[in-house]
Formats: sequence, structure tokens, C-alpha cells
Amino acid sequence: MKILFVGDVFGAPGRHIVREHLPHVLETHQVDLLVINGENSAGGFGITPSLAEELFDLGAHVITTGNHIWDKREIFGYMTVPADSHERGRRVLRPANYAHGTPGFGVYQGELPNGQAYAVINLQGRVFMSSCDDPFRKADELLSQVTAKVILVDLHAEASSEKVALGWYLDGRVTALLGTHTHIPTADERVLPQGTAYQTDVGMSGSYDSVIGVETELVLQRFLTGMPGKFEAAKGNAKMCAALITCDGATGRASHIQRIMLGE
Amino acid sequence: MKILFVGDVFGAPGRHIVREHLPHVLETHQVDLLVINGENSAGGFGITPSLAEELFDLGAHVITTGNHIWDKREIFGYMTVPADSHERGRRVLRPANYAHGTPGFGVYQGELPNGQAYAVINLQGRVFMSSCDDPFRKADELLSQVTAKVILVDLHAEASSEKVALGWYLDGRVTALLGTHTHIPTADERVLPQGTAYQTDVGMSGSYDSVIGVETELVLQRFLTGMPGKFEAAKGNAKMCAALITCDGATGRASHIQRIMLGE
Amino acid sequence: MKILFVGDVFGAPGRHIVREHLPHVLETHQVDLLVINGENSAGGFGITPSLAEELFDLGAHVITTGNHIWDKREIFGYMTVPADSHERGRRVLRPANYAHGTPGFGVYQGELPNGQAYAVINLQGRVFMSSCDDPFRKADELLSQVTAKVILVDLHAEASSEKVALGWYLDGRVTALLGTHTHIPTADERVLPQGTAYQTDVGMSGSYDSVIGVETELVLQRFLTGMPGKFEAAKGNAKMCAALITCDGATGRASHIQRIMLGE
Amino acid sequence: MKILFVGDVFGAPGRHIVREHLPHVLETHQVDLLVINGENSAGGFGITPSLAEELFDLGAHVITTGNHIWDKREIFGYMTVPADSHERGRRVLRPANYAHGTPGFGVYQGELPNGQAYAVINLQGRVFMSSCDDPFRKADELLSQVTAKVILVDLHAEASSEKVALGWYLDGRVTALLGTHTHIPTADERVLPQGTAYQTDVGMSGSYDSVIGVETELVLQRFLTGMPGKFEAAKGNAKMCAALITCDGATGRASHIQRIMLGE
Ligand SMILES: [Fe+2]
Ligand SMILES: [Fe+2]
Ligand SMILES: [Fe+2]
Ligand SMILES: [Fe+2]
Ligand SMILES: [Fe+2]
Ligand SMILES: [Fe+2]
Ligand SMILES: [Fe+2]
Ligand SMILES: [Fe+2]
Repeated sequence: MKILFVGDVFGAPGRHIVREHLPHVLETHQVDLLVINGENSAGGFGITPSLAEELFDLGAHVITTGNHIWDKREIFGYMTVPADSHERGRRVLRPANYAHGTPGFGVYQGELPNGQAYAVINLQGRVFMSSCDDPFRKADELLSQVTAKVILVDLHAEASSEKVALGWYLDGRVTALLGTHTHIPTADERVLPQGTAYQTDVGMSGSYDSVIGVETELVLQRFLTGMPGKFEAAKGNAKMCAALITCDGATGRASHIQRIMLGE
Repeated sequence: MKILFVGDVFGAPGRHIVREHLPHVLETHQVDLLVINGENSAGGFGITPSLAEELFDLGAHVITTGNHIWDKREIFGYMTVPADSHERGRRVLRPANYAHGTPGFGVYQGELPNGQAYAVINLQGRVFMSSCDDPFRKADELLSQVTAKVILVDLHAEASSEKVALGWYLDGRVTALLGTHTHIPTADERVLPQGTAYQTDVGMSGSYDSVIGVETELVLQRFLTGMPGKFEAAKGNAKMCAALITCDGATGRASHIQRIMLGE
Repeated sequence: MKILFVGDVFGAPGRHIVREHLPHVLETHQVDLLVINGENSAGGFGITPSLAEELFDLGAHVITTGNHIWDKREIFGYMTVPADSHERGRRVLRPANYAHGTPGFGVYQGELPNGQAYAVINLQGRVFMSSCDDPFRKADELLSQVTAKVILVDLHAEASSEKVALGWYLDGRVTALLGTHTHIPTADERVLPQGTAYQTDVGMSGSYDSVIGVETELVLQRFLTGMPGKFEAAKGNAKMCAALITCDGATGRASHIQRIMLGE
Repeated sequence: MKILFVGDVFGAPGRHIVREHLPHVLETHQVDLLVINGENSAGGFGITPSLAEELFDLGAHVITTGNHIWDKREIFGYMTVPADSHERGRRVLRPANYAHGTPGFGVYQGELPNGQAYAVINLQGRVFMSSCDDPFRKADELLSQVTAKVILVDLHAEASSEKVALGWYLDGRVTALLGTHTHIPTADERVLPQGTAYQTDVGMSGSYDSVIGVETELVLQRFLTGMPGKFEAAKGNAKMCAALITCDGATGRASHIQRIMLGE
């Protein structure tokens, strides 16, 4: 069984490049399950219902997010659906270790047309990020409830140490733990000894002639002066970054992970 | 001309793996200039004079470091040499944007046996790190003094945004800007449009069955309990991570960058 | 009923000044319940069993702590006692919102000789501090279990916003919420509208010719150079900082809070 | 000679309470020099030219600010005046250790009607705040240029350690070092041994039935859910917090500091 996970889709360049590449990648690799991190799809900041629809139309089974999830308020209502629903709003996740009472959900369990059960878990790191619940213990808690064998975890986090640590912590308990948030793909993809596919960061899908998606000049001004200024999505040199995981549907054990970076 | 830059050498496994691979890599690629980040060479924490000597004996022209530079006090005196010296202690750098009065130096300019001038600059980021001077303006200041055309910058920093931003800021002004500190190699190596070779992080040289070099179980306990505990270098699955840059010695302009990861 | 809460006792100067002043303060004000924050009693870093005994011998019913609690490992075993014990080790608290599995306890409920029930809760903030569980929800959880009406909360936290916010959150639900950790007493003591005595920070008990307890010259060197160096407790100009709360033992409602700063 | 320094004026409640109290305080204490921190005067976020005019009309000689200085863009142009000007725009300071090229100035030297020279310096801390230049060395640099003997420093900073440390560092070199930013007045005002009046934080001038100026319910929602939401200035229980310094105009040496908190 094949799973494709696409890293943070950033603004229009990100949406265009995934629209260009997803069809042939899904086809070529016979992808069964598609998960996309969409936290930056709205101009770099958040996601709206219509952009979520766009990503679902491209074939996404589940959309994961991260710290930018609440940037666009329109998404709140879209994600406010019953826990046992399978509609699209239910399949836009926010990190599961956000506070109780936060809109939406951080885990989704579904079934592919062929009957294969799968689960997607979204978590956020705490090192160098704003406070949230312990992602290690939240993972334990969720895994005790999930019945699917095929489980993909999107760990949205800054620090490499926290991502690597959670990778080892979940090795053998999930099919893949894939990092997002730094917007730069790492070259450390591997299958850990107990069968969990791991990559510290899948990398952003968006313009790479930019500072992690944002117009370079605007970010440089921020670094040089500390003064505010609107951040806009950069254009040019868009790439889709993703990870392709091969796993056994019956055991959920991964056998292979391949890093993908496709440009214009 | 060929430059090899080796990422954070971590503890004994890091030292062993670079000793194993450096000779054939230097030979195969006809490397002219070798720079090694040695901030973690002493069991993961700092560097001692004898470990610096060990890295120089392997052929390093310059050793760069980062936030762990002061972990071993023996290095203070070793780095306390005249600014115009070319002895080994002068060629162990600490980030140039540390406060005035800090021991040692953050830039070194030297000459290869063939007369080729080169400079190495060590900088540290400020995002998610302890306070230091502005690395952007410190780079401007140093570049106004350096006369060599071939210039390698080791930017020791946490945040991908800061590293990418400084890469663009220095594009065309230095031969290469290579990131260190996260201990995970990134897959974004490229030559920027104005001729600067860039990679967000070169990655650690050490054990990859670990949490960024440290024994996994010890780090997991820290994440799970918040309690102190001695961190020890992990063993097993050591890899040397490095970047190989091809550049024009006359102009300093890079034409190629290649990511290297060599294991046991 | 009178409660005295003494702020972070820092090193020998802190221990000496509380030994000097506690007897007459307890006597003069007819204090019923004495709680002392002891996280810095061991030379500024942690607390040992014998120093805890020293504070208990001075009359402390409960010792609270904070982020320095694990600095001295000897305290681990001392705090490892049954949850229903009332021995001294049980009455050294660490923040209640530390991870499950951490030694010790974050809440203690006891009874004064006159039969008056009381509880002490220790919490730690998350803003600008290392990750721990949500102190707001942990307070809710603990308060649902505590049966005593007289409840004192030591909130060990950095950010004024978080301390003030938790004060309002618990107003009317606890007798007093007193802040610690910044080591500087604040002048905002008051009884909130629903009857909770509040002070953002009680202030340290230790040398005030210092940088929050540490020898000034050592801290200045750290700020000026970023270099490591052993921190030692300063001497001279010791003061005991405390808050004296008057409350109704039957309802737990506070009627008065008085800031105390007593010097040599 | 008497100097009055008023802490962070927060929104309309802050502006009203200072308008109510300043006249009689200035009169009663025969204040010669009035400095007001105005970074939060515009609804809690920034300052506009018309609000600056309002504070100048109340008698302010100089307005200091801090991290919120750029929240309202209208102030940029107002502060863009020649360095040697004495007009009002020149007397709105931003922290002096902001990057070169930032609008405005961080130091102002002027003369009172009686010919008494004075200087005001605005600095920002670095601990738990965004990156800026070293406030210790920036203070050295500015003090080497200032010729006035009477010098007031507003250190806008979060960490008590950094504020106390800079107080000791400048003791005997400035008339007063007064902290701002935490919005809670501290009870540690004193004249340091070499004649510098010191207080870790002067406290906010605004509503104290709030979380450091902001409507309590809004801040609690933020802490409880991590979700965005507009912050609005709270109303009710406004207080003006200030420090009154007595010093020798000829030497600049302080002899007394008095904490002031005046309510509705
Ligand atoms: Fe993102
Ligand atoms: Fe993110
Ligand atoms: Fe480092
Ligand atoms: Fe390192
Ligand atoms: Fe503390
Ligand atoms: Fe403390
Ligand atoms: Fe403020
Ligand atoms: Fe501020």
C-alpha cells in the first residue's frame, strides 16, 4: 500500500504546483492514501473552506495543519462537525494536543474504498512553539483508541530534537511520522528499525525563491529592522515536497520511504 | 577549486566516522579546503585542544563551532592567540557575532599552499537562541574587511527562516553559506542565482541512531519528565555529513554543491 | 485565620534572614499556616533534604518550589513517599502540572492542630518557561478534588500576564494566589472581588545586593560575554519577602493581604 | 530637582487617569522633568501622533516606548525628524538598541527652562524578547556621548534579572534606571550605592481590573484555548503608576525614589 504525504502547501504557488504534480504522482505510484498539510494554503496564513475543498478535490483524504490553523476564521465553522462524521470538514485536522474545547479534531480514522482502515494524527511540538499539551502522551492516548493499523502522524514542530525523539518514541507503533513546519525538506528519511517511516521535515510545497514561502525582501526587512510589514507569498521556483511511503496494509509496517521534490 | 565542509562532529562516533571517510573523500574529490564544525566533538559538548588537534591532523584548515563552544574550558586558552597568528588555535573559530571581549575570533583568512586566499566566517543565529549581535550586519562588517574571494560561512542557527534569509542576503558575496546546529541534513542544497552555494543544514557527523547525537533513551526521559539527567553521545549508525562545493578560485563564485552522507 | 507565605529562599543569606525574622513575625501576627518557597535554598539551586528539614524546623507546614526543584538530586528520594502520607517529604511540593511520573506531588492537603483543614497547590507557568501541563486546567482538576476551604496557590511563573490571568481565573475559588520566580516583590497585592488574595510576585528571601540572588559580578559577566561561569549566591543586604493573608477559616475567603519585606 | 516617570500608559483608561492625576502630582511635588512611557497609549497597542501630542500637552518632556512602538504606522513619520531637532516628534523615543536604520531615536538630550540639562535614554531588554542590540554596550556607547548629568533610563524589558543587572551596571552613571513592560509595579525601589535610583518595573498606568491592561475575559480565552481574538483595553479600576526621583541637578546623583500608585 502506498501513502503520499505532501508538506505545507504555501499560498497560490503551492496550490498550483501540487495541482500540476499530484495527478501524475498519484497515478505513477498508485497512491492509495493522500494526506496534505494545508496550514499555509491561504496566502501563507491559514486555510479557508474553499481552499480545503480545492485540496480535497485534488484527492486528499485528510488535510493536516499546524500553528497557522486559526489564521483564517472561516475555517472554524467548517471544522465544527460531529466527531463521528466523515464529511470533509471532519477531515481537516488541527494538532490533537491543542487544548480541550478547541474547534475541530486532531485525529481521523477512515476507510479507503477497498476497505483498508487508516488513521491520521496531527500533533504539534512544544520546543520553541507556543504552549500546548504534551505530544508524547497525547500520542499514547490516541494510539490506545485508534484501531486502524495504518497510521500516519504529521508532527508539526520546530526543533529537530523533538521530532527525532517522537519518531523513536512511536517507532513500531505507527506507519509513518513525518515532520512539517520548518518548510525545508530534510535528507534523513528512513524506515526506523521497528517499521516506522520517518523524515524530520517533508518540506514546503511552494516558492523556493523565498524565505520559507514568503517574499524574500519582506523577510529581510523584518530581520534587518525588526519593523512590522505585511508578509506576502513569494512567486517563482515553486516545488512540491512530499514523502511517499510503502507499507503493509495488514500490519501497518512501513517498508520504504522516498523523498519527493518536484519543480516547475 | 573544491571545498569540503563537514557538519557538527558529535562525540567519539563522529570523530571515528570522519577519520574513516575523510581520507578517501579528500582524495577522490581533490579537496583544496577543508572546514569542520567541531562544536560537539567532546562527547557532544564542546571541544578540547587535543580534539581540535585531532581534527587538524585529519586535514582541517579551519574548525568552526557554535553555541557549545564554551562547554569545555580548556579551549579558552587555546583560542587566545594574536589576531594575525595562523597557528591552529587561531583557526578554531567561535561565532563572530559574539560579544566583544569574548575569547577567540569569528573570522579567519588564510592561504592555501598554492597561494589561493580564502576566508572562513562563523556566525550564530538569534531566533530561538541566546542573544548575540546581529548576524546580518556582522556579515556586512566582516565582508568589508575580508580580501579573499573564496569565502565560506558557517551559520550556526536554529530557525530555517533565519538561515534561508541570510543565504539570500549574502548571495553573490560569499562562496558558500552552510547551516549547522539542527544536526539534521537538509535536502535543499543549491547554488543561488548570484553564485553562493547554500544548504540550510549540513547535518551532524555522528550517530544517527540517536536524538541528534545523544543517546535516545536519555532524551526521551527528558521530554517525558522534564527531569535532569546526563546526556551522553549515542553509539551506532554513525554517518559523516558534509557539503562539497565547487567554485572558481579567482572569483569565489560557486558552480556546484553536493550533499554527502557516508555511513559505516 | 492568618497565613504567611515566604518567597523563594535563596542560599545561605535567604536561610539566615528567614531564621532571623520568622519567629517574631509568626508570633506578632499569630500566624496559623506557614508556607515557604524553597526552590533556591541550596546555594540558589534546588533544595536538599537537610535544608527542607531546616525550613520545617522553622515552622513551615508546606514547602513549595519551582523550576529549580531537581537541581539537587538528593531531594528525589525525600519526596518519594505515599500520596496519603503527611510526613515532611510529602509536604515538599513540586509544581502540580509537571508530567505524570515525576517524583513527588504538587498538592498537599492537611489539617492544623486546631482541626482547620487547608490545602497548598504548587503550579508553574508556561510562558517563557519550559513546557509543562496547562496550569489553568490543572488548577481546575485539583480544585475539584480538594475538600479544604482554605487553599493557597504558589504560581511559579515568569510572565506577569500569566500570573494575573490565573489570579482572575481562580478568584473566589482559592484563598490566595501568590506568584514566585522573578525574585522581585511586586506592589500589586490586593484581595480580588471574589475573595482571593493576590500578588504577582512575593519576591525572593535572600541578598538584594545581587542580581535576583546571584553575585552581581558573575551575572554581569554572563550578560556581557555570554560565557559560562559558576553562579554563586550573593551576600549582603538580605531581606525576607513574604505575604501575610487574613482569611476566614470556614469559607476560605481572604479579607486582607499585606506585603512584608524585612531586612537585616 | 524632581523627576517624575510615568509607566506604560495603556489605552483610554490610562490616558484618563494620568490626565486626572498629573496636574496635582506635578504641582505638589514641584516636578521639573516629566517622562512618560506611551507605548500602549493607543488602545494598548502603539502610539499615534495625536496621542503623543496629548501626552506632551500634559507636560511630558519626553515620551519613551518599547516593543509596541511600531503597532501604529502613523507614528513613523512623526518620529522622522532631524537628530538635532527638539520638536515633539524628536522627543518620542524608541529603544536605542534597535537596529540602525530604524526610524526615530533612542536618546534625547534637552534643557529645562531653567537651563538644567538632562538626557533620556530608552533601551529594550533581550531576554524573552525579540532580538536587538546589546543594551549594556549600547548604554556605554550612549553615555560616552551624553553630556548632561541628569540622565533617566527607561529599560523596557521582561526579565527581572536583566533589569536588575543593568541597574547595577549603570549605578553611579545615570540618575535613574526604571523598568517598564511587565505592567506590574515592583516594590523594590531604592537608590543604589553609587547614586542611581532604581525600580525593576514602574507598572502600567491603566485599568487594573484586567490582565496587564487587556480585558480579562479575552486574555483568559487566549490562555485556555490558544485561539486568536482581538485584544481590547479593559475598563475600570484605573491607576496611574509612576516613580518620583529626587536628584542633584549638578551631579545627577539621585537621593530618593518614591513609588506612586494613584487610583480613581
Ligand atoms: Fe507551515
Ligand atoms: Fe507551521
Ligand atoms: Fe549548536
Ligand atoms: Fe551542534
Ligand atoms: Fe524559579
Ligand atoms: Fe526562585
Ligand atoms: Fe507596555
Ligand atoms: Fe512592552
